[in-house]
Amino acid sequence: MKPSALDLAEAAVAGNRRALAQLLTLIENNAERAAPAMSRLYSHTGRAHIIGITGAPGTGKSTLVAAMAQAWRAEGKTVGIIAVDPTSPFTGGAILGDRIRMRDLSGDEGVFIRSMATRGALGGLAAVTLDQARALDAAGFDKVLIETVGAGQNEVAVARLAQTTLVVEAPGLGDEVQAIKAGILEIADVLVVNKADRPGATQTVRALRTMIETGHPALKTRWMHHGQMIGVDDRYPLEDQDVALWIPPIVETVAADGKGVDLLVSKIEEHRNYLETAGLRAPLERAHLEVELMNRLEARLLKRLLERLPEGVLSEMVTSVQQRTRTPEQAIEALLSQAEVLAVES
Amino acid sequence: MKPSALDLAEAAVAGNRRALAQLLTLIENNAERAAPAMSRLYSHTGRAHIIGITGAPGTGKSTLVAAMAQAWRAEGKTVGIIAVDPTSPFTGGAILGDRIRMRDLSGDEGVFIRSMATRGALGGLAAVTLDQARALDAAGFDKVLIETVGAGQNEVAVARLAQTTLVVEAPGLGDEVQAIKAGILEIADVLVVNKADRPGATQTVRALRTMIETGHPALKTRWMHHGQMIGVDDRYPLEDQDVALWIPPIVETVAADGKGVDLLVSKIEEHRNYLETAGLRAPLERAHLEVELMNRLEARLLKRLLERLPEGVLSEMVTSVQQRTRTPEQAIEALLSQAEVLAVES
Repeated sequence: MKPSALDLAEAAVAGNRRALAQLLTLIENNAERAAPAMSRLYSHTGRAHIIGITGAPGTGKSTLVAAMAQAWRAEGKTVGIIAVDPTSPFTGGAILGDRIRMRDLSGDEGVFIRSMATRGALGGLAAVTLDQARALDAAGFDKVLIETVGAGQNEVAVARLAQTTLVVEAPGLGDEVQAIKAGILEIADVLVVNKADRPGATQTVRALRTMIETGHPALKTRWMHHGQMIGVDDRYPLEDQDVALWIPPIVETVAADGKGVDLLVSKIEEHRNYLETAGLRAPLERAHLEVELMNRLEARLLKRLLERLPEGVLSEMVTSVQQRTRTPEQAIEALLSQAEVLAVES
Repeated sequence: MKPSALDLAEAAVAGNRRALAQLLTLIENNAERAAPAMSRLYSHTGRAHIIGITGAPGTGKSTLVAAMAQAWRAEGKTVGIIAVDPTSPFTGGAILGDRIRMRDLSGDEGVFIRSMATRGALGGLAAVTLDQARALDAAGFDKVLIETVGAGQNEVAVARLAQTTLVVEAPGLGDEVQAIKAGILEIADVLVVNKADRPGATQTVRALRTMIETGHPALKTRWMHHGQMIGVDDRYPLEDQDVALWIPPIVETVAADGKGVDLLVSKIEEHRNYLETAGLRAPLERAHLEVELMNRLEARLLKRLLERLPEGVLSEMVTSVQQRTRTPEQAIEALLSQAEVLAVES
């Protein structure tokens, strides 16, 4: 007999790694069936340090993640890793080489690695990753690392779930520009220049430093949670408070031979301590939760509306919009009143 | 007295460029006030060829857009351009140099250029761009070009509004990899290697060709509208139909001196003709409209729910989730029943 979602959750919380793996699969494949498990384990969450690692392809993120995991293991901390790989129909999969490097860590009960394709569920990726991170948190991992390729809006959304976000660059990739354009740099709590033994590392560090310095006024508003106000309706007017600023440090690493990794790990700890002492940890979590609730509400409301629509109505509406007999706005009003929910009020 | 949104729409449709400019500003700044104008002009839409142009920074997209506009002008066609610039808090603005090049086209009544920052409204960018493209369509422009930086999910969303999507690459940027990772390549109807007089152009073309060839099975499913099924509930099982495949052509250009631009323009026309003859134009528009309606419905439903919530309830719920006395799921159920809309049904 297959174990129930609840059984999996209880076993995972109790430390059963096999149950944890099954639970993560369930979360990825069937959010609805996983829901009771999420409820069961939710009270065990909120202890792990959730760390996002993002950056362009070729910056050596996976190697860096493996090196960081080893550093934390040496301190006796447990590490859960979720690696999110965008899967192009052209390439058909993740960069396996990177994944393989992670195997250095296998056989260690204190490390748990999960690789996830982003096939399909683009909209739901952040939700799935969030729930998986929660499962690892509830299973007792001290550090939960979420590795994403810093290419799309979606990856940025994933990184935003984290308490501490690393943006990884490497010399000679022209990444400085890429990062700015993609809006990735402004989400960084710690900047890493990996492959720092390569030519051009000094210039990359200098370029990043310049951007941080010239961007100083912008940095201040970062404490509105990456451009988003922490908390609703100005209950956290952080700009008026006497909160120390966190200027993202730039750390040079050579992940392949471990150089700089101890310093990086200590900077990550420093950032977590900063969040605590500045009183920012709770408002940050609150902001994350608010965004999550809004996203879930939207999806739920739409689902219910669609379920309530009489057969064929949606299709008719689209047809009328396409034939220009209704505007999109008129179609929405009609759909709302047909579903007899949330109809227009005067 | 300020003209009303309706007045602006009527004047814009009648060919008044000043009114059109004001209307586009209204759409960008105040969707609600612009709504009557959108209704007014909607019946005039559906005639323009909407073309998306995307690619990494440094590929020369803006120059290419200007060169294409000139080529179409030489054929007597009118061209509307919407240039979408992601604005980083670090850089504070668009790359002005690129914009300036567009001025070669100014003074020509048959060309209309609109530059839009993406400041703020990330979620709403696609909606705003779509409505602006509709305004240009209704104002009678033959070609409506939407230029975006191919960096984020959001830009991909914008590109997906188009009938024909160009992905622009340039030699020596390492963009082949970037494009695949970002999932941009698979949305291309026409691939452009710009700056083709630079070293490495041949390799870039070859890399793209290889990707297209090895990706052939994937290409087939592209006719499910970029990985998304065209039409709801399998009413358009295109895979079973005898629809000719469109293999994205690769066109080399040197936009700065106009080389290859005529060929590019003819390939774009060819793609439009292909959509017509393969019977794909209508299903593609239908798929776009469906996505638009779903997005608008979601936003509307959430807005109304939040309006109906008693004061302080949302904040209380977030607090209880943060304190782990409610799971996110339980909070959502509570919010739905508090708003007395779409409550749980057995």
